[in-house]
Amino acid sequence: MRILFLGDLVGRTGRTAVIEQLPEIVETNRLDFVIVNGENAASGFGITEAILQDVLDAGADVVTTGNHVWDQRDTLVYIERQDRLLRPVNYPAGTPGRGAHLYTARNGAQVMVANVMGRVFMDAMDDPFAAIDKVVGECPLGQVADAIVIDMHAEATSEKQAMGHFLDGRVSLVVGTHTHVPTADHQILEQGTAFMSDAGMCGSYDSVLGMEKEEPVNRFQRKIPGSRFTPATGVATICGIAIETDDRTGLAERIEPLRIGGRLEPVLPSFWNTAG
Amino acid sequence: MRILFLGDLVGRTGRTAVIEQLPEIVETNRLDFVIVNGENAASGFGITEAILQDVLDAGADVVTTGNHVWDQRDTLVYIERQDRLLRPVNYPAGTPGRGAHLYTARNGAQVMVANVMGRVFMDAMDDPFAAIDKVVGECPLGQVADAIVIDMHAEATSEKQAMGHFLDGRVSLVVGTHTHVPTADHQILEQGTAFMSDAGMCGSYDSVLGMEKEEPVNRFQRKIPGSRFTPATGVATICGIAIETDDRTGLAERIEPLRIGGRLEPVLPSFWNTAG
Amino acid sequence: MRILFLGDLVGRTGRTAVIEQLPEIVETNRLDFVIVNGENAASGFGITEAILQDVLDAGADVVTTGNHVWDQRDTLVYIERQDRLLRPVNYPAGTPGRGAHLYTARNGAQVMVANVMGRVFMDAMDDPFAAIDKVVGECPLGQVADAIVIDMHAEATSEKQAMGHFLDGRVSLVVGTHTHVPTADHQILEQGTAFMSDAGMCGSYDSVLGMEKEEPVNRFQRKIPGSRFTPATGVATICGIAIETDDRTGLAERIEPLRIGGRLEPVLPSFWNTAG
Amino acid sequence: MRILFLGDLVGRTGRTAVIEQLPEIVETNRLDFVIVNGENAASGFGITEAILQDVLDAGADVVTTGNHVWDQRDTLVYIERQDRLLRPVNYPAGTPGRGAHLYTARNGAQVMVANVMGRVFMDAMDDPFAAIDKVVGECPLGQVADAIVIDMHAEATSEKQAMGHFLDGRVSLVVGTHTHVPTADHQILEQGTAFMSDAGMCGSYDSVLGMEKEEPVNRFQRKIPGSRFTPATGVATICGIAIETDDRTGLAERIEPLRIGGRLEPVLPSFWNTAG
Ligand SMILES: [Fe+2]
Ligand SMILES: [Fe+2]
Ligand SMILES: [Fe+2]
Ligand SMILES: [Fe+2]
Ligand SMILES: [Fe+2]
Ligand SMILES: [Fe+2]
Ligand SMILES: [Fe+2]
Ligand SMILES: [Fe+2]
Repeated sequence: MRILFLGDLVGRTGRTAVIEQLPEIVETNRLDFVIVNGENAASGFGITEAILQDVLDAGADVVTTGNHVWDQRDTLVYIERQDRLLRPVNYPAGTPGRGAHLYTARNGAQVMVANVMGRVFMDAMDDPFAAIDKVVGECPLGQVADAIVIDMHAEATSEKQAMGHFLDGRVSLVVGTHTHVPTADHQILEQGTAFMSDAGMCGSYDSVLGMEKEEPVNRFQRKIPGSRFTPATGVATICGIAIETDDRTGLAERIEPLRIGGRLEPVLPSFWNTAG
Repeated sequence: MRILFLGDLVGRTGRTAVIEQLPEIVETNRLDFVIVNGENAASGFGITEAILQDVLDAGADVVTTGNHVWDQRDTLVYIERQDRLLRPVNYPAGTPGRGAHLYTARNGAQVMVANVMGRVFMDAMDDPFAAIDKVVGECPLGQVADAIVIDMHAEATSEKQAMGHFLDGRVSLVVGTHTHVPTADHQILEQGTAFMSDAGMCGSYDSVLGMEKEEPVNRFQRKIPGSRFTPATGVATICGIAIETDDRTGLAERIEPLRIGGRLEPVLPSFWNTAG
Repeated sequence: MRILFLGDLVGRTGRTAVIEQLPEIVETNRLDFVIVNGENAASGFGITEAILQDVLDAGADVVTTGNHVWDQRDTLVYIERQDRLLRPVNYPAGTPGRGAHLYTARNGAQVMVANVMGRVFMDAMDDPFAAIDKVVGECPLGQVADAIVIDMHAEATSEKQAMGHFLDGRVSLVVGTHTHVPTADHQILEQGTAFMSDAGMCGSYDSVLGMEKEEPVNRFQRKIPGSRFTPATGVATICGIAIETDDRTGLAERIEPLRIGGRLEPVLPSFWNTAG
Repeated sequence: MRILFLGDLVGRTGRTAVIEQLPEIVETNRLDFVIVNGENAASGFGITEAILQDVLDAGADVVTTGNHVWDQRDTLVYIERQDRLLRPVNYPAGTPGRGAHLYTARNGAQVMVANVMGRVFMDAMDDPFAAIDKVVGECPLGQVADAIVIDMHAEATSEKQAMGHFLDGRVSLVVGTHTHVPTADHQILEQGTAFMSDAGMCGSYDSVLGMEKEEPVNRFQRKIPGSRFTPATGVATICGIAIETDDRTGLAERIEPLRIGGRLEPVLPSFWNTAG
C-alpha cells in the first residue's frame, strides 16, 4: 500500500499549501493513507480544531504533533473527541488524548500510527523506546496491523537512528520530525523498515525553522529578544516521504522523498508513476 | 569555480572511501577546490597527522574539524605546522592552530575557509556569529577572496540557518556538519550565498552516526554504557555538496548534493556534466 | 528516631573521614539510622564493593548513589547481592539492583530509603515523580514504614524543591545530593516533611566538586582537556543533615545540618545534645 | 571594610522585606557597601526603574542582575542612565548598560562590582572567565580598587567554584546567585578571596524558587503548563553574605552568612557585633 507522510506544517503558508494541494496528490497517486505532522500549523504554535478539520478534510488520515501540541490551550479539551489527532505517546499517564491508534485506510487495511518524542536536547518525557516497544508489541505488524508508521519527533539524529534500528523489522516506517529540515538519508533498513531522519517541514524555506528570519538572527547575535516569532510568508515547500509497503508483511518495499514548491529542489516519488 | 565540500569522515570505511575515490572525482570533474571535514577520521575520534596527510594527498585542499578536533592529543602539537588543518575559529584566544585561512586554489583563485562551532546543544564556545563576522570582514568576498566557504559545525538547524542568513551575500557557501546526516535543503539564499544545513558524513549509514549501532541502541534503552563506541564497518557513502561560484562576485550560481556508494540514494551534481 | 544522612563521599579523603569518624558519631549521639551517598567514593567515580563494605562497617545502614553508580563496572554484578546499596529507582525496568528498600533500624523501626535521579540538566531517566509516588504509595509512612528518606540526586534546585512539596506529609525527609555543595535551606515543610536542597559532599572543599581544582579551571578557560580529573587531597569536611522524627507519625520534628572538619564552618545538630 | 551582598529579590514579598529592613541593617552594623541582586524583583521577572530606585533608596549601592535582566522591556532603555544597575558583563559587545563599574563606598573606598553569567546549563554568553579577567585586570585590587565583588550568576556549582579559584587573590568576594538557594560553603580561599556558591534569594522559601509551588510541581508531573508562574506570598527570608575586607589589600578577613525572617534558620554575621 502507498503511504505518504508530510512534515510539520508551519503557519498559514505551510498549511494552505497542503490543504490546497493534498487532495489532488492523494487522488492522482492513489494514496492509501496520509499522515501529516501539524504541531506548528496555528501561527507556528500548535493546531486549532478548525485547522485540524481542514487538514483532515484535505485528505490526511491522521495528524501527529510534538512538543508544540499544547500551545493552543483548547487542544487539551478537543483532543479527547478527535481520535485522528495524536500527541506523543510518552507523555505521563493521564495525559489527554492518545499517542497511538489503529486506523482503517482507504484500501481497507489497518494502519497503526504512533507519535513519540525524543529526549536528547528536549524535555524529559517518559522513555520513548519503552513506550513504542509497548504499543508496537500490542499491535504486531503483519498480524493486527497491515502497516505501522512511527513519527519520532526529536532533535538528535543519534536518537532517531537508534529508534530506527530498534524497530527495524517491526514497523513499516520510522520518520523523524521537529528539525524542520528534510534529510536525504531515506533508506530501507536491513530488516525491512523504511527510515528517514527528518521529513522536513511544509513551510517557507526562506526562514529560520519556518519563522521570519530577522528575529532569530537577532537573538543569536544579541541574546536579547526583540520581538515575537512569526511564521515566514514566502511560498511553502511541501516536504514529506512516501513509502510502498508489502501488503503481506507490512514492511517497506520503497521509500522516496517528496518536495513540492518553494525554494527546495523539487522531487516526486518515482514509483508513483508506475501503474498500480 | 567548482568547489566540493565533503562531510565528516567517520572511521576507516569513511576515510578509505574518500582517499580512494577523491582523486578521480577531482580530476574528472575539474574541481578547483576541495574541503573535507575530518573530525571523526581516526576511529571516530579526531584525526592523526598521518590520516590528515592521506586526505590532503587524495586531493583535499583543506581539512576542517569540530568538537572532536582534540580527541587525538597529538593534534594540539602538529596543528601548528599544518596550515591546511582548521579547528573551529571560536575557541578561546591562545588555542593552537587556526580557524580560518586563505588558500590558493588549483585555478589560482584565493579561497578563504573558516570553521566555526555552534553553541546550541553544544559546549559554550566563543560567539560564532561575532567570530565569523570578524574573519569575513577582514577578507571581503570579491575583493580579497574569490570564494569563501564556512563549515558551521553545529547541532541545531535553527543556528545553522541563522548563520546562513547572517552571511547571505558575504560568502560563497555556508554548510553545516556534525549531525552526520545529509539534509536536502540545499539552496541559494536571496543574496547569493549557497546553503545546506548539513553535508552528512562519509561513513556507513547502517549505523548510528557512523558507529556500530548496537551500543548506541543499548545506551538509549538501558542508560548504562555496555562497551565503547566503534566505527561501523559497512560500505561508506561519500556525502557532500558541490557549488559553482561566479568568478567575479564569488557568490554561488549552483549548489547540488553528492552521494556516492553505500546505502543512500546516489546523486551527482548535474552541472558537473556540462562542458567547462 | 534519629536519622543522619551524609552527602556524596568524594575520593580517599572523603571516605576516610567518614569511615574513621562515623562510628563515634553514631555511638555518641545514639543514632538510629545512617544513610551515606557513596557515588564518588572510588577516586571520584562510583564505589567498589570493598569500599561499600567499609562504609557499612563504619555504621552506614544504607549507601545511596546517583549518576556515577556504574562507573565501577563491577557494581552491575555485586549490587545484586548487596541490598544495602541503592541505585536510582528511576532507571529503566530490568536494571540491576534496587532503588528503594525497607530496612530495620537499630531501634527496631522500619525505615524505607529511596534513591531517585532528577532530569533537569541531567540524563533523561524515567519520571522521578511517578517512580517515587509508586514506592511511597506501596509503603505508607506511619503504617508500613516508621520513617522514609528520599535521596533526590539532582542538579536543579527547582526540581528538588518540587519533589519536597510533592512528598510533603508523606515522607520523613527529602534531601538532595549531586551538586557537592551543602545548602542552608533546611526546614520542615508545611505538612511535616524535612527538606534540604543538597546535603553537600564529604570531601575537600579546596577543590572543584571535590576534585583537584587545576584541571576544571583549565577546561573552563581553554575548552580543551589537559588531564584526568583526580580527587583533591585536602582535609575533608563531612557534610550531612540530621533529623529527628516523631515515632508515631514518622514526620520530622527537627532538622539540622552537620559539618565536621576541613574548610567549612563547623556545626553539629543542637538537638543531639539533649537527653534522649 | 564591611560589605553585604543580598541574593535575588523575588517578587513583592522579597523586595518589601529588603526595602523595609535594609536601612536599619546598614545603620546598625555600619555597613560600608551593599549589593543586591534584583533580577526577579518585578513579579519574578526583571526589575522596573521604580523598584530599582526603591532598592537604592533603601541602602543598596549597586543592583546586579542575571538572565532575567531584560524581562522588563524598559530596562534596555533606562539602564543607560542608571549606572548603579549592572547587567552581566559577558553579553555581546554593544549591549546596553554596563557589566562592571567602580563605585565610592560610604567610607570613601573604591569598590569595583562586576556581574557575570555562567554558561553551564545556561544560555551561551561570551566567555565569563575571559570577561572577568579583563575587567579585574583593568582595575587591580589594592591599587585601583579597595574591594572587588563578583556576582557570578550561574547554575552549576562547578563553574562557580572554578571562578572562585580563578580569581583567588585578585578579588575580595566571588558570590554566586541564580539557584535561589543559599549554600553553606562560605569560606576564604587560599589566596584570600571570600567565596560562597550561592547567596540564596530574598523571597518566600515556601515555594519553588520563590514562586507559588503548585504550578512548578504540576509541570514536573504533567509536562503541560497549567498557568503562569507567580511569586509566592509567604514571609520572605532575606538571604545574603557579609564580608570584612582588609583595608590595605582588599582581600577578605571574614565571611559569614545572613538570613533574616521567614522559614530558614536565622543567622547574623557574628563579627558585626564587635566594636568597629
Ligand atoms: Fe515542528
Ligand atoms: Fe517540534
Ligand atoms: Fe562529526
Ligand atoms: Fe561533531
Ligand atoms: Fe556526586
Ligand atoms: Fe552525581
Ligand atoms: Fe534569580
Ligand atoms: Fe537567574
